Amino acid sequence: MENTETTEPKERFIAIRRGLLEFLVLKVIAGGKVYAADILSKLAATDFATQEGTLYPLLSKLRREGLLDHEWQESESGPPRKYYLLTEKGREQLEETNQYWKTIIKTVDELA
Amino acid sequence: MENTETTEPKERFIAIRRGLLEFLVLKVIAGGKVYAADILSKLAATDFATQEGTLYPLLSKLRREGLLDHEWQESESGPPRKYYLLTEKGREQLEETNQYWKTIIKTVDELA
Repeated sequence: MENTETTEPKERFIAIRRGLLEFLVLKVIAGGKVYAADILSKLAATDFATQEGTLYPLLSKLRREGLLDHEWQESESGPPRKYYLLTEKGREQLEETNQYWKTIIKTVDELA
Repeated sequence: MENTETTEPKERFIAIRRGLLEFLVLKVIAGGKVYAADILSKLAATDFATQEGTLYPLLSKLRREGLLDHEWQESESGPPRKYYLLTEKGREQLEETNQYWKTIIKTVDELA
């Protein structure tokens, strides 16, 4: 019987995208103070679209690890909003991860 | 209590490396007919080092999916050896994955 299984690259790369999400969230937060909704909307425009149910636990985990912090900011139009920023440790880890990401790209590029 | 958890980028990227392994195995096989030991030795030189216990089930899975095939080759020094090569479908999938990999790199690069 002919094998008719077809898998889109996007599906096959689900583990990669999952693994990259934490890195991307740190990158987005490093770009300036952001609310959770800003992070979701930046990711929504990419292959890394995710939902509150995934993002919130990840933000909590990153905070427990000391990589990010949050502050409350008054809002004229409603209750105070929580925005996120990287700690010094978070910036260091982002830099390491950036370097490691470059070595992965190089490895994939050179391997044949 | 200070959070003392430290995670090396390598550990944090374990999901990414796992997700890339299939792509890299296809890349190595596309480079020319190879034995399983050749694949292991090419990967051993990179961050994607893996073991027989991981590689063999992956090769079987890729074969079931119709992405690669194997042939037996006589050996003067021992029993026949099995070497792997990509099918047409495997080459197509590798090309798609190459393209998809490029979009991931671009996304990570541009997101901030």
